[in-house]
Amino acid sequence: MVAAASIQPRIKFLQMPTSQAWVEQAIANLDIILLDHSHCERKAAGVALNLMCRYPSSEKLVRALTAIAQEELSHFELVNQWLERRQIPLRPLPAPPYGAGLSKQVRREEPLRMLDSLLVAALIEARSHERLGLLAAHCPEAKLAQFYHSLMASEARHYGAYWVLATTYFDRETVKVRLEELSTIESALLTTLHPEPRVHS
Amino acid sequence: MVAAASIQPRIKFLQMPTSQAWVEQAIANLDIILLDHSHCERKAAGVALNLMCRYPSSEKLVRALTAIAQEELSHFELVNQWLERRQIPLRPLPAPPYGAGLSKQVRREEPLRMLDSLLVAALIEARSHERLGLLAAHCPEAKLAQFYHSLMASEARHYGAYWVLATTYFDRETVKVRLEELSTIESALLTTLHPEPRVHS
Repeated sequence: MVAAASIQPRIKFLQMPTSQAWVEQAIANLDIILLDHSHCERKAAGVALNLMCRYPSSEKLVRALTAIAQEELSHFELVNQWLERRQIPLRPLPAPPYGAGLSKQVRREEPLRMLDSLLVAALIEARSHERLGLLAAHCPEAKLAQFYHSLMASEARHYGAYWVLATTYFDRETVKVRLEELSTIESALLTTLHPEPRVHS
Repeated sequence: MVAAASIQPRIKFLQMPTSQAWVEQAIANLDIILLDHSHCERKAAGVALNLMCRYPSSEKLVRALTAIAQEELSHFELVNQWLERRQIPLRPLPAPPYGAGLSKQVRREEPLRMLDSLLVAALIEARSHERLGLLAAHCPEAKLAQFYHSLMASEARHYGAYWVLATTYFDRETVKVRLEELSTIESALLTTLHPEPRVHS
C-alpha cells in the first residue's frame, strides 16, 4: 500500500501513515465522509463525557475533558451545517471495525483502564488529525478543504491533551511503552482498507 | 409538608411545588448542593448526548439537543469554578432515588421510549428550574444566590425545548396525557424528603 506521507508531515504517535488508497476512497466519497465525520465528532464528545463520568474526582481530567467535549460538540454542529448545505440528511452509518478494535485493547482493571482509555482516545484524535489534514490537502472543493484545515489544529490539541492527562496520572515511561503497543495495533487495524468509506476506514 | 410555593411562581409541568423542608435542607448544606449540582449538569449533558446518539436521523432533535448539551457543559464548568473557589474537591456523590425512579417509567418499545425519554428530561429540567429558583431566593450568600438566578433562564429554556421536541414527534394530546402521568410520578418521588441533601432529594 502506498503511503500518503509524502504530502503530509508524519504525525507523532502514529506508527504508519495513512495509505494513498484511503485518500482516493475518501475523496471519491466526500458526502459519506462528511456524514461519518459528524458521527465521529458526536462520538468523540461522548468519549470525553464518559471519562469525566468515570473519573469524577480527577480534577485535571474533568477540566481538560470538559473543554474537549465542548469543542467536539461545536465541530459536530459545524459538520452538520455542511451536511445541511449539501442537503445530506442525517442518518446512522455502520461504524468501521477501527473503534471497536481499539476499545478491545482497553484493559478492564483500574488504573490500567484509565491509562488505556486515555491513550486510545489520543490515538484516535491523532489519526483524525492526520486524516483531516489529508482531506484538507486533497479535497478538490476549496471551501470544504479550508473547513478541514480549520479543524486540524483542535484535533492536534486534543491528542496532546489526552497525552498530557496520561502523563499526569501515570509515569512517563509506563505511558510511552503502552502508547507504543497501542500504536502498533492502531496502525495494524488500518492496513486493510475498510470497503466502506469512513474517516477511520 | 409545607410547600415553598408562596415564594415562587408555580412551574408549568410540575404537579406539586417543592417543600419548605427541601429548601431548609439545601440551604443548610450549600457545599453538598453545589457538588451535587455539578454532577447534575454533567449528567444532563450526558442525557442530551445519549438521545442524539439514539436518534441520529431526527434533525430537529439533534440540533436542539446539541445546544442543550453545550449549555449544560458550560454550566458544569461554572459550577466547578464555584467548587474550586470554595475549595470543595470534586468527588462522586451517591445519587438520590429520583433519577432512577423516573428512568424506570421510560417504556422500552419505540416510539414510546422516545416520548417518555423527552418528557422525563423535560420534568427533570422543570424541577431543576424550580429548585434553582428557590436557591436563588433563599441562599444567604448574595453572589451564590445571583449565580443560581443566572442559571434559571436556561433551565426554563431546556424544559421548553424538550416539550417542543415531544410535540414535534408526537401529537399534542398524546404528549399531554403522558406528561400528566409522568408528572404525577415525579411529584410522588419527591413527597418523602431524601435524607441526603441533593438537588433532587
